[in-house]
Amino acid sequence: MDNICTGDLGRLTPMEYRSLVRKGEWTGSSMEACCGWALTDMVIVPKDYAVDFFLFCHRNPQLCPLVDVTEVGSPHPRRVAPDADLRTDLPRYQVFKDGKLIDEPTNILNYWRDDLVAFLTGCSLAFDWALLANNVQYRSIGAFASGIPCVAAGPFRGNMVVSARLFASARDVIKAIQITSRYMLAHGAPIHIGDPEAIGIKDLSRADRIVLPGKIDPPKPGEIALYWPTGGATMRDIAKDAKLPLMIVDYPRSGFITDLRSEELAIF
Amino acid sequence: MDNICTGDLGRLTPMEYRSLVRKGEWTGSSMEACCGWALTDMVIVPKDYAVDFFLFCHRNPQLCPLVDVTEVGSPHPRRVAPDADLRTDLPRYQVFKDGKLIDEPTNILNYWRDDLVAFLTGCSLAFDWALLANNVQYRSIGAFASGIPCVAAGPFRGNMVVSARLFASARDVIKAIQITSRYMLAHGAPIHIGDPEAIGIKDLSRADRIVLPGKIDPPKPGEIALYWPTGGATMRDIAKDAKLPLMIVDYPRSGFITDLRSEELAIF
Repeated sequence: MDNICTGDLGRLTPMEYRSLVRKGEWTGSSMEACCGWALTDMVIVPKDYAVDFFLFCHRNPQLCPLVDVTEVGSPHPRRVAPDADLRTDLPRYQVFKDGKLIDEPTNILNYWRDDLVAFLTGCSLAFDWALLANNVQYRSIGAFASGIPCVAAGPFRGNMVVSARLFASARDVIKAIQITSRYMLAHGAPIHIGDPEAIGIKDLSRADRIVLPGKIDPPKPGEIALYWPTGGATMRDIAKDAKLPLMIVDYPRSGFITDLRSEELAIF
Repeated sequence: MDNICTGDLGRLTPMEYRSLVRKGEWTGSSMEACCGWALTDMVIVPKDYAVDFFLFCHRNPQLCPLVDVTEVGSPHPRRVAPDADLRTDLPRYQVFKDGKLIDEPTNILNYWRDDLVAFLTGCSLAFDWALLANNVQYRSIGAFASGIPCVAAGPFRGNMVVSARLFASARDVIKAIQITSRYMLAHGAPIHIGDPEAIGIKDLSRADRIVLPGKIDPPKPGEIALYWPTGGATMRDIAKDAKLPLMIVDYPRSGFITDLRSEELAIF
């Protein structure tokens, strides 16, 4: 992690950032914005599917750690950013109808309905910052489709997408497991260590889901990989199979920034 | 804690205990049964209220830490005790109609419907055992109606009932906070320490919700009180105000025993 929060976006407050996004003045990545504030992925489903999606989150707590859920029909995440509007405050969205990606708009005002419920789930950035603060050395190499099945609920089913991080030192692997265990609302401890093929990943040198910007060197001998579930990318896969009449998720790297400090995604 | 798990019931496996209960051969307390296994409280609501109750649990995670939720219409808690039947495997139930307690049966076969959803939430017994195993000395003095409001969701609203424990040593207070913090699915860390009046409790010498068996000495000078939310007693209060057409909860001290070890209610 070397390019976090170094630019102007990193110094914005969540409210300033969301205002910029709301006015359409920023439609790029949220990953470098608002250093130290909690970023979340978002899934929006009609009320008729809300129980099933709640069940899905409950059954896959590391994949989809719930940070906030809106009242039916309300686009305002009352607990974590009451002034925000989830229809406009993310840089970009993906809109699925019957499993087909039909639009990637920069707001969803035209898609909003009175029966929609929005779920916000924590993102690993919070523990990336904690690892950095603890001088744990590693490198992110992107996200991969794995063979680890989610526990299904209603129409929501499929395999997890996982992000992989490579560590050169055994001490840092242990520290990383200790530190991330506290961040239950940011995916928590890793779900796998070591051999990628054991979880259905053929080639760690080429991410097939989230491809990071810049050149990524392939794994080196002696590096140990840790894997975490990644909510946004998994849900974009699952949206295709769930085939809901309407389902909206955040565009890759375009999550919602809350008024919580990222440390608040730790459990204690 | 001195009377835990000393009798014959304490040595039963969860399956043996549930079988006894199912046959109607035991209709008393679950608190002394199946030492080391995870006890849960239960709330059953019709599907139309399931989203609201999910929201309620999400917004009050220390009060109602979700351990399992059944599929609509299924009485089988698939994740934590797939062989169990929630209609028969608790010693006693309370059935509310429109907010009125209409029955306290030893099974709910006659009340079950295809649109019911059961929620199981963790109970503090898991951390009581952990405190005991860590030689932390304290005494439970029962449960009290507090002035701490739950975060409302739909019809579910009201104040928390809290259980109080008294500690004679400062070292044990600190250890208790450390240890219980890990047991997120058993209410986690205390929600209050010290002055009962600060949370609306007038008299710590007389529990007004869960009254423990035997004589309880009043607090002594120098004892420090820690308070934890208690799910079952709170939900029995809330059921009266929520006034659902049907809502079923476990009778006091008559929770459901899962196939999870109590240690599995700790987060890591």
